[in-house]
Amino acid sequence: MSPDRLDRTFAALADPTRRGILARLASGDATVTELAEPFAMSLPAVSKHLKVLERAGLIARGHKAQWRPSRLEAGPLKDVAEWVDDYRKFWEESLDRLEVYLRHLQAREKKRARRKK
Amino acid sequence: MSPDRLDRTFAALADPTRRGILARLASGDATVTELAEPFAMSLPAVSKHLKVLERAGLIARGHKAQWRPSRLEAGPLKDVAEWVDDYRKFWEESLDRLEVYLRHLQAREKKRARRKK
Repeated sequence: MSPDRLDRTFAALADPTRRGILARLASGDATVTELAEPFAMSLPAVSKHLKVLERAGLIARGHKAQWRPSRLEAGPLKDVAEWVDDYRKFWEESLDRLEVYLRHLQAREKKRARRKK
Repeated sequence: MSPDRLDRTFAALADPTRRGILARLASGDATVTELAEPFAMSLPAVSKHLKVLERAGLIARGHKAQWRPSRLEAGPLKDVAEWVDDYRKFWEESLDRLEVYLRHLQAREKKRARRKK
């Protein structure tokens, strides 16, 4: 996958409405009208978001001009998952460090409680 | 995690230089000068990218004004991984469908080959 494609994917995902549209499409294909409803947006505003998603390859649209239902395309999301997975050890490590720290605090508390008896 | 934070994270990741900086920091903390070198960029240009990464919480910077080494912060990347994971079944399903289609093609080829004998 080219860096350009990841650029377009990340840029497309940097908007709550566009992520909302993807979430809606995850439960089934939808027309522009159906997508506009829950977001209380105008059709042109929704169309603009759909164009960004389509350019990023995150959705595909039907060819029937009048309806053109949108469909979720998961390929670029897989690329995002693979990209971010390279960093997994970093957040797992920081959770490990937090756990060590919490155990240290618990041990100290126990020690204190024992001393008080 | 707030939608705003995901917005900032995705926007910060929509740039190959910023992703490159994160990849560099994955192998250890680095100063602005050290980060500028491999990217053949000016220090102000790198600083600008670092500010975007810092606002998104993707890096933290030291307090010593002169050096201010940057450190990778994996929290927002974990959020991205969790967000994208909701869509995993979609790319796994499309791989499954592709496999079914490939098996169908192979079966047809075999049938044809048998007929030719």
